[in-house]
Amino acid sequence: MDASDLNVFFRPKGVAVIGASRIPGKLGYGVVNNLIEHRYNGPIYPVNPGADKILGQPAFASIQDVPNPLDLAVIVVPAAAVAGELEACGQRGVKSVIIISGGFREIGPEGAEREEQIKAIASRYRIAVLGPNCIGTIDTHTPLNTTFVTGIPNPGHIALVSQSGAIAAALIDWARGAGVGFSRIVSLGNETCITEADMLVAIAQDERTEVITAYIEGVSDGRTFLDVASAIARERPIIALKVGRSSSAMKAVASHTGALAGSEAAYNAAFHRAGVLRADKLEEMLDWARALAWQPLPRGNRVGILTNAGGPGIMALDALESYGMQLAPLSPETKTYLKKRVPAAASVGNPVDVLAGSGPATYALCLDALLADETVDAVVVIAAPQDWFAPVSLAEVVGEVGNSQLGRRKPILAAIMGLASTSDATQVLHRRRIPNFAFPERVGSTLGAMWQRKQWLDSLDTEEKLADRPTPDRAAARAIITGYRGWLPDAPRDALLNAYSIPIPPAGLAHDGKDAVRLAEEIGYPVAVKLSASRLTHKSDLGGVALDIRDETGLQAAITAMEEQVARFQASGQDIGTVEGFTVQRMEDGQVELIVGAVRDTQFGPLVMAGLGGTLVELRGDVAFALAPLSRQQADDLLDRTHAGRLLDGYRGNEPADREAAIDVILKLSQAAVDFPDIAEIEINPLIVKGKGEGATAVDTRIRVTPQDG
Amino acid sequence: MDASDLNVFFRPKGVAVIGASRIPGKLGYGVVNNLIEHRYNGPIYPVNPGADKILGQPAFASIQDVPNPLDLAVIVVPAAAVAGELEACGQRGVKSVIIISGGFREIGPEGAEREEQIKAIASRYRIAVLGPNCIGTIDTHTPLNTTFVTGIPNPGHIALVSQSGAIAAALIDWARGAGVGFSRIVSLGNETCITEADMLVAIAQDERTEVITAYIEGVSDGRTFLDVASAIARERPIIALKVGRSSSAMKAVASHTGALAGSEAAYNAAFHRAGVLRADKLEEMLDWARALAWQPLPRGNRVGILTNAGGPGIMALDALESYGMQLAPLSPETKTYLKKRVPAAASVGNPVDVLAGSGPATYALCLDALLADETVDAVVVIAAPQDWFAPVSLAEVVGEVGNSQLGRRKPILAAIMGLASTSDATQVLHRRRIPNFAFPERVGSTLGAMWQRKQWLDSLDTEEKLADRPTPDRAAARAIITGYRGWLPDAPRDALLNAYSIPIPPAGLAHDGKDAVRLAEEIGYPVAVKLSASRLTHKSDLGGVALDIRDETGLQAAITAMEEQVARFQASGQDIGTVEGFTVQRMEDGQVELIVGAVRDTQFGPLVMAGLGGTLVELRGDVAFALAPLSRQQADDLLDRTHAGRLLDGYRGNEPADREAAIDVILKLSQAAVDFPDIAEIEINPLIVKGKGEGATAVDTRIRVTPQDG
Repeated sequence: MDASDLNVFFRPKGVAVIGASRIPGKLGYGVVNNLIEHRYNGPIYPVNPGADKILGQPAFASIQDVPNPLDLAVIVVPAAAVAGELEACGQRGVKSVIIISGGFREIGPEGAEREEQIKAIASRYRIAVLGPNCIGTIDTHTPLNTTFVTGIPNPGHIALVSQSGAIAAALIDWARGAGVGFSRIVSLGNETCITEADMLVAIAQDERTEVITAYIEGVSDGRTFLDVASAIARERPIIALKVGRSSSAMKAVASHTGALAGSEAAYNAAFHRAGVLRADKLEEMLDWARALAWQPLPRGNRVGILTNAGGPGIMALDALESYGMQLAPLSPETKTYLKKRVPAAASVGNPVDVLAGSGPATYALCLDALLADETVDAVVVIAAPQDWFAPVSLAEVVGEVGNSQLGRRKPILAAIMGLASTSDATQVLHRRRIPNFAFPERVGSTLGAMWQRKQWLDSLDTEEKLADRPTPDRAAARAIITGYRGWLPDAPRDALLNAYSIPIPPAGLAHDGKDAVRLAEEIGYPVAVKLSASRLTHKSDLGGVALDIRDETGLQAAITAMEEQVARFQASGQDIGTVEGFTVQRMEDGQVELIVGAVRDTQFGPLVMAGLGGTLVELRGDVAFALAPLSRQQADDLLDRTHAGRLLDGYRGNEPADREAAIDVILKLSQAAVDFPDIAEIEINPLIVKGKGEGATAVDTRIRVTPQDG
Repeated sequence: MDASDLNVFFRPKGVAVIGASRIPGKLGYGVVNNLIEHRYNGPIYPVNPGADKILGQPAFASIQDVPNPLDLAVIVVPAAAVAGELEACGQRGVKSVIIISGGFREIGPEGAEREEQIKAIASRYRIAVLGPNCIGTIDTHTPLNTTFVTGIPNPGHIALVSQSGAIAAALIDWARGAGVGFSRIVSLGNETCITEADMLVAIAQDERTEVITAYIEGVSDGRTFLDVASAIARERPIIALKVGRSSSAMKAVASHTGALAGSEAAYNAAFHRAGVLRADKLEEMLDWARALAWQPLPRGNRVGILTNAGGPGIMALDALESYGMQLAPLSPETKTYLKKRVPAAASVGNPVDVLAGSGPATYALCLDALLADETVDAVVVIAAPQDWFAPVSLAEVVGEVGNSQLGRRKPILAAIMGLASTSDATQVLHRRRIPNFAFPERVGSTLGAMWQRKQWLDSLDTEEKLADRPTPDRAAARAIITGYRGWLPDAPRDALLNAYSIPIPPAGLAHDGKDAVRLAEEIGYPVAVKLSASRLTHKSDLGGVALDIRDETGLQAAITAMEEQVARFQASGQDIGTVEGFTVQRMEDGQVELIVGAVRDTQFGPLVMAGLGGTLVELRGDVAFALAPLSRQQADDLLDRTHAGRLLDGYRGNEPADREAAIDVILKLSQAAVDFPDIAEIEINPLIVKGKGEGATAVDTRIRVTPQDG
């Protein structure tokens, strides 16, 4: 989809409404009415064979009769008639069509068939189709409103891309009530042709749009979304509200959209990589959008709080710290300056508490001083209700300083608290592009999001290219994988690790106790012994692993115990597959045990995982994910996102471990997952990381292969 | 403080305002004005020696001149004059006084001295003083408004107790704007006499109050708060917004209120025990308050969702699941009933999606059916904006069914989405006591809070008495502890554990290698050896522990290594205290390693901790806290609040461990902490819990003693 073509959906030369109606309440009436009422200033062509005029506009019997200029058609006819009308659009040469009508994939097989028809017609005529089953588009600046939804938000700088028409409609209604401006709104419907990624690109080209918000249930194609979002986020913030976190919600999404779900971990990893800010709630998304549209990013995470009461200052501080912000220390000069300008009992530490008796002038002086202080990266201005000055006076002052030379360099968020007495003040602040909150709680997540974006942008500058990728023996690896399906047996698994130069402990496969003793003597005690059987996965749970065996007696005892265990399995009919023997392995010892792995996500492809290893990994869930391939820096960051990072650095007086070796293994494993889509899953647990310069060893590895078609 | 006396602060017979003023903008003007304007219908007595009349009311030169009925005085004079006026109140026999004036403890030593004076006068005359440095009280039903803050909320059923006047003032302004009703509001100021606990009791006696909300920075006395809140919460929900979570916020609280902070863990444990619902944000507190005041509690956590669009249903589901609620399965009868009453393409699974074409009548039928379904404990009704019926019609229908015989038995929350077109609908719903939300996101935390309260109330019924407490040898324990300060050496520590029958491994103290070998042979290999030195705490970090020693050679080597380590410590000047020798201990083996402990909180006293043990406890932080003493059930619940619970039950095919033995140790340790306030800290890590019926052993224990005065 060429994004510049999609601009027609927001700025057409002429719009036909196929299925236009004279009857209020019908969708085909609503669309024409919205085009007229919200002052679209190009020609509007109602198409309805039974009408001469609709809402004062001359009507046409068919799209064929509509004159130029015409580049956008909105179809609102019953589902069964849509294909015919789309075909007619194709013949008329209309290349952009919004299908509002429902009755397609969302209603079952019959509808899905209709949708296929539409897809074929669109492809034949090269028509860009938005929908079906959507509410259309809004551009408040053109202005254009192709929806049937009552009302339109004020012109603004926030765009919305929504995979739910209902949410888009509710947001339009909310935005009108709250006075929040939007630039463009698009509801995607079933995404038969145009996807969320296409529309992100189209909207990113709109000069009036400063922030893009997105309501997302799932993406059409993970890697395309990633590429598109990464590119756009360099220029403009993207904030996503991704629903379907819980298991039953994921099921509901699947039945709602039929899209491949993709795991939550993969979405988070993709958003993290692409610099997409993930909001938890609509309110949060809208808070962030306003702040990011209106205010500069903070250079750092140190906040100055200016307040006239203690409680709200503490409230702000709680909120800020829980999102990674901290109190600015304030320079001695600032404190000295403030001391002379506030009441004697006031606090000139941070939070700066000017007390209830201070008014707009004191706020002006203190805000200016905080903005001038080099230790301050952002300022939160709080005011509890006072009856001796009007909140609007304070708003004017904060607005003025905020738009001064100093004020434009650092973000300012305000909490002139309350509601009944503060609506004027909020309006003044919003006109001056300073977000105001009824209570200072929401400033935390908002500044946190701005700071997150700043860090992401900074990371782009320092990011190395992916040039220094590992250079594995791919031919050998391919030969090993080919033909397998399921968990790899020990030998090919170890060969694959060798092909990627991932160190494994010296080991061998013994058939019986005698054999094992011989092997152990070669390898050197202490050793570990593992039962090698093709269907035994969680070995340690089933008596299939004996560790730290220090001599022959211990070894013999362990083998005997395992042989008995196998006999029990067989007696009880438990299927552990073919028993290949006993792997005797050198017992590895190191500083830190990690788990590292890769899984193939249905949407985003290979997803790399790292965290603290051991048997409790699945219970603790202390692992982090990133999309492959990774740069060295990204692998390093991945380790820091769990407790593994601190442990590798030498926790509580321990020697630091060989973090570089751990990163090498992560990169190699990531590379293997990228090289071979057949690898569905790799897990090394534990990866024993030794002292600095001493390397890391993959002690236990599981690899599952699922041959991909093609 | 007798709570029935405190009722005077909300329903006085006559109110004097000392410091009443004729000048608008002065606080003494605001108070008189609010009493008159908000229609207090008892006598109002302005006291001002320089005025005849104030705002139409005859003024008095002094409190002595004020006639009866008079039982409440509000003092708004400069700080230096407050003591004199309070003394005059005492002489006049006024027993309830609100001191609005600031300039006391909050401004430093000079103010603190004035506050002491006030305290002394109050005590001498037995005056109940609210404040100083507060904004006073509101009762919307009396009506009474002793504050100077502009405006008053509508009469309602929510009370607010606030430790910040600014937050109270902001909430009053917000409530007026949002149309939320309150019953009573009180700002506590410096709490010189009347504390938050006193006011909670007073407000709990108000029949109009159905829910109590509290803005809390810290409590005056932990155990009093706990007792008071527990008793009240049996009758009425208490929702607390406790600020000061972050470290710097705690510092700010301390400097703001001078109160002892108490740890976050202790507050959470206290709220948990007392059934106080802890909200994270004001918005959440107000959401919960309305729902708890208006709707019945759910009997279980299974929710029916009724919607006309897929997206918002998914959004609700995400929110609900993240607060422990789940989808109701719906009975086959309900599905059959619904199938006949909704469009063919609609979903009669849960969420029930009636699609965009369904109106109020369909909602009425479906809502009724969900309420009648035994699998449904609560219903969320969602509507995306439609242009073919008015939101208010839907609100009427939901309101009517919600107040029917069926509707009154189960909680209903609504999300008639939007803002511009929904304010009438919201008003209708709120009149019918059904909370409406602009988006369905907030229903999750709200129903979650209601469900949490239901579970707490249920737990009261099943809670055993604390009768079956352990019966330790307290005399022996007292003899051991007396005279110590700091970490207990190994011998008295083990004696203390013995006095409480907490099992420890067989062990002995060896002076050298030979001695150690003799001991190990007595105890039996494998053994562990620990360096015993009075100032060595984190032994394993410093080479002070050797585990799993299996024979004499190993033991000798371990002792030699430790002797060398001690020599290195001494050479480097590191102070590890007196070296007592080497503790040789039987190496214990079990199913699960726990950490259990107790610390003394400055506010709430002994706080018991439990979680997964090991060396990474401090990094992982997987521990939970509860206030001592505990019932057996509470100790059991404590274990379930971390991963320890699942591990004890037999994680991933492991045999279950001896949970009862772990609970015994927790109860004994809790008892020790209760018995001896001198015990500042006990920590057992690891407590090795063996197989079922095999017990648990405290392998490594640290006990710190801090003699308490008195």
